[in-house]
Amino acid sequence: MDSNRQGEHGRAVLVAGASRGIGRALVRALLQREDVARLFAVARDWSGAALPEDPRLQLITLDLTDDAAREALAATLGEHCEQLDLVINTVGFLHEPEGQQPEKNLRQVNIAALQRSFAINAGIPILLAQALLPLLRGHRHCVFASLSARVGSIGDNRLGGWYAYRASKAAQNMLMRTFAIEWRRLNRDSICVLLHPGTTDTGLSAPFQANVPEGKLFTPEFVAERLLTVIAERTPADSGNFYAWDGETIPW
Amino acid sequence: MDSNRQGEHGRAVLVAGASRGIGRALVRALLQREDVARLFAVARDWSGAALPEDPRLQLITLDLTDDAAREALAATLGEHCEQLDLVINTVGFLHEPEGQQPEKNLRQVNIAALQRSFAINAGIPILLAQALLPLLRGHRHCVFASLSARVGSIGDNRLGGWYAYRASKAAQNMLMRTFAIEWRRLNRDSICVLLHPGTTDTGLSAPFQANVPEGKLFTPEFVAERLLTVIAERTPADSGNFYAWDGETIPW
Repeated sequence: MDSNRQGEHGRAVLVAGASRGIGRALVRALLQREDVARLFAVARDWSGAALPEDPRLQLITLDLTDDAAREALAATLGEHCEQLDLVINTVGFLHEPEGQQPEKNLRQVNIAALQRSFAINAGIPILLAQALLPLLRGHRHCVFASLSARVGSIGDNRLGGWYAYRASKAAQNMLMRTFAIEWRRLNRDSICVLLHPGTTDTGLSAPFQANVPEGKLFTPEFVAERLLTVIAERTPADSGNFYAWDGETIPW
Repeated sequence: MDSNRQGEHGRAVLVAGASRGIGRALVRALLQREDVARLFAVARDWSGAALPEDPRLQLITLDLTDDAAREALAATLGEHCEQLDLVINTVGFLHEPEGQQPEKNLRQVNIAALQRSFAINAGIPILLAQALLPLLRGHRHCVFASLSARVGSIGDNRLGGWYAYRASKAAQNMLMRTFAIEWRRLNRDSICVLLHPGTTDTGLSAPFQANVPEGKLFTPEFVAERLLTVIAERTPADSGNFYAWDGETIPW
């Protein structure tokens, strides 16, 4: 028996996209909590992440679009814990410096960009849930939270633009709600939620911060605390729904 | 001047996915209407379509996933009409005989199937709108309708399963609503709507008809008439919304 196996009273947590932005802030915030016994932090690249040394923290270097690597993840984690109590996916894609940008209009839409946004923003979270399913079974309180975005709300869409990002987030919302329904049948105490973090001062929002109202550009640290609070307030009756950083329900 | 150019009082209509199922039934129903002056029917393959001979009907053989062919479409149509009054996209993918099937559970989800459903069910309608945009400008009543499905409603999802189909239809809903917002700025009299046809006796639903309640499996002919009625009842204030065959609004 591995002496590091999680104790009865400590939670095992996984954060995906943990090297930057909101994911990294979540890791730091979770390490402040004594009830966290194990923290698995997943990212492709840890350069510049500057996460604190902590015996509970295990960095896992992994490209979540790599099928074989993702499928091996549960076995790796299974050496350290029997179940996960909390999974938070923060992986998302909006733009890159010299490449894909959010579309300002229909003329800029193209299938390669649609597919890429879809693979990352919708594909990764549902395939992560699939890969971790062996560690999400059993009848006990367990949360899978994934970052969505208010611009991924179809009903709330008033400005237009950003076709690929919006569509991929709407697709994620559907995939995770579908997972919530299936997961509830396997575990009545499961909670799968989508989260809108608000506009956060990270690389993702950096080119689009000019028009953010005063006081509405949040720090990653503030958002991490808010999201952990919103997660803590959820019950199984909330599973399959979409919440903002302030706990407000967001329409689909 | 081409003597076949559309007259002042006749509508120019395009139906995509016109060789089978609901698309073919729409073509036949539209040819019954005297106000239809030009009907462009788009499909990849016309074998077995058995559409009637009609001087107003022009068959266009085209794979809508082919960027170059799709981009040439507006120029081809422009030889026959200056604007389109109605576009109906019926292209959709759920399953194929020896290949992709809708997922019964999370284990069956895979990225190739997700991407394929997304490319057809979400990519084709928005890229068709993009290709036809030169013929959708100008301030006059103009409708772009695309088949969605009630199982593409996130809020209405209670059964789970069918991950790729559901997610791709939710993505389409977002893309078309985003287009509706942009199009309204170009044409105040534009109407872009998503349509749920009900379960229709076509190849798409064929393997899934066993549990359809009595009287709820519609003929393509019935659905075509219903959808044309639902379209005719819409005003620009309805643009960007999602309607069932009976005119009911469907939540996102």
